[in-house]
Amino acid sequence: MQTYVLNGKNKYWSLYKKLRGDILEGRLKNGERLPSKRALAESLNVSVITVQSAYDQLLAEGYAYSKERSGYFVSDVNVEFYGKRDVPPADVRQEKKFALDFVKGTASSLFPFSTWAKLMRTVLSDCGEHLLERVPCDGDAELKNAVSSYLYRARGIDADPRCVVIGAGAEYLYGVIVQLLGRDKLFAVENPGYGKISKTYNLNGAKCVYIPVTDAGVDCRAVEESGADVLHFSPSHQFPTGAVTPASSRARLIGWADSVDGYVVEDDYDSEFRLSGKPLQSMFSLCPDRVIYMNTFSKSLAPSMRMGYMVLPPALYEKYLRLFSHSANVVPLFEQKTLAKMLDGGYFERHINRLKNYYRTVRQAVLDKARQLCVRDIKDTGSGLHLLVSFDGASDKILKEQAAQRGINLKCLSDYLLSPMDGTEGWAVINYAGATPEGVAAVKV
Amino acid sequence: MQTYVLNGKNKYWSLYKKLRGDILEGRLKNGERLPSKRALAESLNVSVITVQSAYDQLLAEGYAYSKERSGYFVSDVNVEFYGKRDVPPADVRQEKKFALDFVKGTASSLFPFSTWAKLMRTVLSDCGEHLLERVPCDGDAELKNAVSSYLYRARGIDADPRCVVIGAGAEYLYGVIVQLLGRDKLFAVENPGYGKISKTYNLNGAKCVYIPVTDAGVDCRAVEESGADVLHFSPSHQFPTGAVTPASSRARLIGWADSVDGYVVEDDYDSEFRLSGKPLQSMFSLCPDRVIYMNTFSKSLAPSMRMGYMVLPPALYEKYLRLFSHSANVVPLFEQKTLAKMLDGGYFERHINRLKNYYRTVRQAVLDKARQLCVRDIKDTGSGLHLLVSFDGASDKILKEQAAQRGINLKCLSDYLLSPMDGTEGWAVINYAGATPEGVAAVKV
Repeated sequence: MQTYVLNGKNKYWSLYKKLRGDILEGRLKNGERLPSKRALAESLNVSVITVQSAYDQLLAEGYAYSKERSGYFVSDVNVEFYGKRDVPPADVRQEKKFALDFVKGTASSLFPFSTWAKLMRTVLSDCGEHLLERVPCDGDAELKNAVSSYLYRARGIDADPRCVVIGAGAEYLYGVIVQLLGRDKLFAVENPGYGKISKTYNLNGAKCVYIPVTDAGVDCRAVEESGADVLHFSPSHQFPTGAVTPASSRARLIGWADSVDGYVVEDDYDSEFRLSGKPLQSMFSLCPDRVIYMNTFSKSLAPSMRMGYMVLPPALYEKYLRLFSHSANVVPLFEQKTLAKMLDGGYFERHINRLKNYYRTVRQAVLDKARQLCVRDIKDTGSGLHLLVSFDGASDKILKEQAAQRGINLKCLSDYLLSPMDGTEGWAVINYAGATPEGVAAVKV
Repeated sequence: MQTYVLNGKNKYWSLYKKLRGDILEGRLKNGERLPSKRALAESLNVSVITVQSAYDQLLAEGYAYSKERSGYFVSDVNVEFYGKRDVPPADVRQEKKFALDFVKGTASSLFPFSTWAKLMRTVLSDCGEHLLERVPCDGDAELKNAVSSYLYRARGIDADPRCVVIGAGAEYLYGVIVQLLGRDKLFAVENPGYGKISKTYNLNGAKCVYIPVTDAGVDCRAVEESGADVLHFSPSHQFPTGAVTPASSRARLIGWADSVDGYVVEDDYDSEFRLSGKPLQSMFSLCPDRVIYMNTFSKSLAPSMRMGYMVLPPALYEKYLRLFSHSANVVPLFEQKTLAKMLDGGYFERHINRLKNYYRTVRQAVLDKARQLCVRDIKDTGSGLHLLVSFDGASDKILKEQAAQRGINLKCLSDYLLSPMDGTEGWAVINYAGATPEGVAAVKV
């Protein structure tokens, strides 16, 4: 007779799962008779009804069959197929780990998890069943207001809260932009640049053209001659070059957008992490009618929080409502309310301040180590979480070999090229978002 | 001197918010001198550093300015603009309420909120900081496995858990399908039908062609002659006609998909709600290589839970990974883990059983009321949450006038036409997903 420990209130379900497990793992075999309901009930000290319910479930799902007046029998289940094919959890599927990763990662150990969990519990008890309500396409009003206030406090951006659109991360919002502006539009993206941007525009059916970025920022003349309708760029701190687009270019690009009746997407992906000096003025503040401001919480909170937002020019926001008001927002209300409380309570800014202090030490460790390694040149604007280094006579190939020997995951500037460009050889991109001061200090000279 | 009650641990933030509120609401006026730090600290029984921090924040955000040796003053803030433009919460923005709504709504009062909240708390304490991890593009393994097991239990569908893709609701998944199959593909959708489907395909850049649906299900010949590459339909219970596509047509449509090297999207949106008889076999089970199975939890759990899933044919799943493996899944891990527990623990099925019992009483109330109103004909397959009724001599216009007089939100079959079609006049679509037995019984005869 089988002996099972049945947990929880739901005994029949627990029994059903144990029996199913035994069938799938071959302990109960094809054609084997299951114990009588009464006998099993007695041996497990449960009611016959509990056993009956478990057997009914097995029958309904084809794990067992019944023969009149002789009882229940195990079906011929393809054990090989059913038993072994569960998807392993993500950590098993994960890629190679490095001693030091200068390509990806975040300081997730600094995430204020207890605050977040506390706010979640507060939202759960405060909002209760309101959390089940359909969220308007542009997001929950409380979060829209909180983002607008935050932008004003942290970034000096005067964003009408009505025009804030909440979405499930940056890539999701790129897709919305294509639907909003039309996939017949030509999108200008930075080269070298963050490959996901053009990839996502392409997946959404829009074509991209590549604009060179130099130390002087994005090449305005190339934008003007590109035939593009939309420029997607990061004027405050470009990835990976670190270039800052100067005020004169910004004004010129706004003029360009006006002249082609187009738009600028200001991807402000790491503006929270200006580690020295004052924040740079946003493009959006220059001309809220031509600029779509965009940011996410992936870098500042956690990659699993698929939350980002954009601020649309008022005319575009109206078009957005016309196109999408039939849809519900894709971010769960629960997360939206929790983030709103995090922003409104000042917790987010305190978290950012802690992160900035931490990243200052990581950056210093990187600069110290670069000096020890006799770096030739460093490009670092003191903003964001990456900088560039070059070494005398070191090609990309040598840089990567040296990194690999030290267990470092590294990419070079040229790895981010979307179309060929001169003058990118010999620069290592040190993205220290996922690095620790100790990890950097431990690199062998 | 201002008196403020400062809450929480973060006193400076609390003080800053009170002061900002006073400035924005005009209680502190342009040019007015703020109290000295020392004086305010004493009056509020806080430290001078607390007041200093609050003043610094006001300065940083431009709500106040300082004059050397004379203190802090209120800036000229556009009170009208800043103070009053917060977006009102969604319930203020909501549309008209009806005495009885036969167009939209769900039985959200039956949602097992306490179970859901309990599972959320369990996930929060069990998973902890793992909740911050990036989720693979196709979703969390635990939920993928849980969906696969559920489909087998509830629907007899043998879905490889690897090929399950989790997404933020049905519309989101329609967009993924377009990106996966290509927007050069022609999508055949049902007419009359659920307008959001073609709208979403169009927004994603794909063209649609309309296929007539009669009581005998989708018109196979029209599909074959349409030139379409993909057929999106609901073979088990079409909305709004309620038609069931018979076995012979299903086999023919699989043959069609094979012959054009195309796919069938089986939108099984309400299969949980078969109120009488046995569940119908899915198209997916007939031919898992040509059918994309799709369903969501919007109807069965709550519209605010943007969670749906699809099961892809293995070859398409591999293409999906090639296209999307750079992306993270857009559904928060927290919700995915909670839903997995809900499915694995049997809570979901118990909830569905409760819902079905409830909806049987609603359906019976609808049928009783229809008889009282001397209905001429009823089309009802006992599945899903809607049926059709017609009355002698009642045109669509009369049906709607009669409904409006009774405070009922009602649409007719012809309202769901996407292109003109004969024989649809005079049928009211009774979608009782959001109705109550009492509400239906109260309708005046």
